[in-house]
Amino acid sequence: MLHAVVMSGGSGTRFWPQSRRDRPKQLQPLAGETSLLQQAFDRLEGLVPADRTWIVTNTLQAEATRQQLPTVTPEQVLEEPRGRNTAPCVGLAARHLLATDPDAVMLVMPADHVIGPHETFRGAVGRAAELVSEDSRRLVLFGVPPTHPATGYGYIRRGDPLGGDHQGHHVAAFHEKPDRATAENYIATGETYWNCGIFTWRADRILEALAEHQPELAVGLEQVGAAVGTDDYRRVLESAYDSISPISIDHAVLEHSDDTCLIEAPFDWHDVGSWHALSQLSENDPDGNTLWGRVTVVDSSDCIVRSDGDHLVATVGVEGLVIVHTADATLVARRDDEEGLRRLVERLEEEGRGDCL
Amino acid sequence: MLHAVVMSGGSGTRFWPQSRRDRPKQLQPLAGETSLLQQAFDRLEGLVPADRTWIVTNTLQAEATRQQLPTVTPEQVLEEPRGRNTAPCVGLAARHLLATDPDAVMLVMPADHVIGPHETFRGAVGRAAELVSEDSRRLVLFGVPPTHPATGYGYIRRGDPLGGDHQGHHVAAFHEKPDRATAENYIATGETYWNCGIFTWRADRILEALAEHQPELAVGLEQVGAAVGTDDYRRVLESAYDSISPISIDHAVLEHSDDTCLIEAPFDWHDVGSWHALSQLSENDPDGNTLWGRVTVVDSSDCIVRSDGDHLVATVGVEGLVIVHTADATLVARRDDEEGLRRLVERLEEEGRGDCL
Repeated sequence: MLHAVVMSGGSGTRFWPQSRRDRPKQLQPLAGETSLLQQAFDRLEGLVPADRTWIVTNTLQAEATRQQLPTVTPEQVLEEPRGRNTAPCVGLAARHLLATDPDAVMLVMPADHVIGPHETFRGAVGRAAELVSEDSRRLVLFGVPPTHPATGYGYIRRGDPLGGDHQGHHVAAFHEKPDRATAENYIATGETYWNCGIFTWRADRILEALAEHQPELAVGLEQVGAAVGTDDYRRVLESAYDSISPISIDHAVLEHSDDTCLIEAPFDWHDVGSWHALSQLSENDPDGNTLWGRVTVVDSSDCIVRSDGDHLVATVGVEGLVIVHTADATLVARRDDEEGLRRLVERLEEEGRGDCL
Repeated sequence: MLHAVVMSGGSGTRFWPQSRRDRPKQLQPLAGETSLLQQAFDRLEGLVPADRTWIVTNTLQAEATRQQLPTVTPEQVLEEPRGRNTAPCVGLAARHLLATDPDAVMLVMPADHVIGPHETFRGAVGRAAELVSEDSRRLVLFGVPPTHPATGYGYIRRGDPLGGDHQGHHVAAFHEKPDRATAENYIATGETYWNCGIFTWRADRILEALAEHQPELAVGLEQVGAAVGTDDYRRVLESAYDSISPISIDHAVLEHSDDTCLIEAPFDWHDVGSWHALSQLSENDPDGNTLWGRVTVVDSSDCIVRSDGDHLVATVGVEGLVIVHTADATLVARRDDEEGLRRLVERLEEEGRGDCL
């Protein structure tokens, strides 16, 4: 059966002050009325029912996550004691799936992406699941045709076609985040895609691959799997995560396996990595301002202005700013200065104001 | 006896959103721990006791004004039904003073100026009062030696010395707000001062002068004066103000009277007309930022940032902005764009958001 595993443990500060450590971007209504997590859940409608939808998050965010998805049982919201990148996350979910469904096929997807249309997404997942049912060893990932030479994504180059009617390909190579010139070369080949971090495979198969390539991690996960449903579960989980090193599923398995293949993503995909990126998904006023909430702008252009609740945010004569007001903190920054936001976070830590993060 | 009359009815929006129509700048702690009104009151300590200190404000602000000055009796906070510039304000106060003290001498001063040191100010007022006791017809105003060719102030040119030991002069001419070149010429003469709107005269004398130069106004004020202490007072006051046209005491009287004289103000004087002006009175950080409240700035310069209460305001990579956070509204503007703030106020009116003003 097809299960969905939504990875929802991220805790960035790129959307500070809207996002916080205990209210990360995926739990925020950044793009639309509902949170990115809720949108991810809605995306699965008609493809995977709620009782086969699993969320992996961390303990700090678990309560808020459960509140946002009332139709998902508390047990299906899996808690990692701490984030250890995607390989342990995927492995943990696979262990839980196998405990209820030995033939589980997993759709793995991050909670914090903006994807549409939903129907196109569901169709693509259906084809990925077919690839897996055709050959149970396959580790299928989605490649997004790049629209610009982004330097912030990993790229994957397709190899030979898998054959058959479907349009799947073997993966010829993984490329780390490139510089701009390299990214342009990748795009020029017409054979290179963004690795969007959405995968489909059998739960038993990904665990087998983890055992082959990451034996230590696999042993820890096996112990956790054996404890599912027992009183010992949390203790075993804590203990396993104490010795788990962070590693992505790409590095841990996909880059090393001959069974990694890709299908081209036919859906729109945005990873919404910054206020700037978010504004490009949003409607702008004639002066290029992206405005959310109770905002009045005068003689201002290319600004992103967001206000919570009834609070009025007004601008006069400014350009290229991001202004975000929340109940307890307000940011005013150059909109293109993502690095600066990181420095701000450091500064707030230094000043003992980490409570705002 | 010397009485103080503090004119406290202003209602600008130049400090929006810190100042509002019902909480204007003089009621705000803009420069220091206490409000400008409270600082004006403190300035009088040892010069004029609380029971001879009168505040003229408007009905909208009367309650807040009384709360800020608990040692001033409610009756000494005079309410104008609406602002009609300084001549009616001065006349109203003079009528009230005369009702209790036929020999009252009035120090008239605006509530919204920053003046120091207090002792120097008190000494100067003492000398002004001496000029008045020497010649009861004198209308004394303070001339502030200009420090730069300001275009926003009225200028007064001194004439012949009054004679005697004191350094008073007749006033030779009043000049409206000049352009910059004209202001430079004024300064070059060494005989021209800013008219800071602080005056000393006898109450009966200023009423006499109003009767001479503004007979209609004087009649209205006389009716009000006759009603002081009666049940009819408020009705008579309302009725008088219905027919009073706005006019400044300068235009109404001082420019026309041979008895107008000036003494040079030996104190520091600032009218704090804008955020920009206020920041120049304040301590700056090494990057030229003026920061009030819970504020963290990163890679930012020449900014004015103010936060109310516990709210954190953080900036990254911005310059030349004024950022003011209050409980229900936040402004982000170019710091030198005072005109823009007026446009914002208009826009908020148009958008039906006048409740924020």
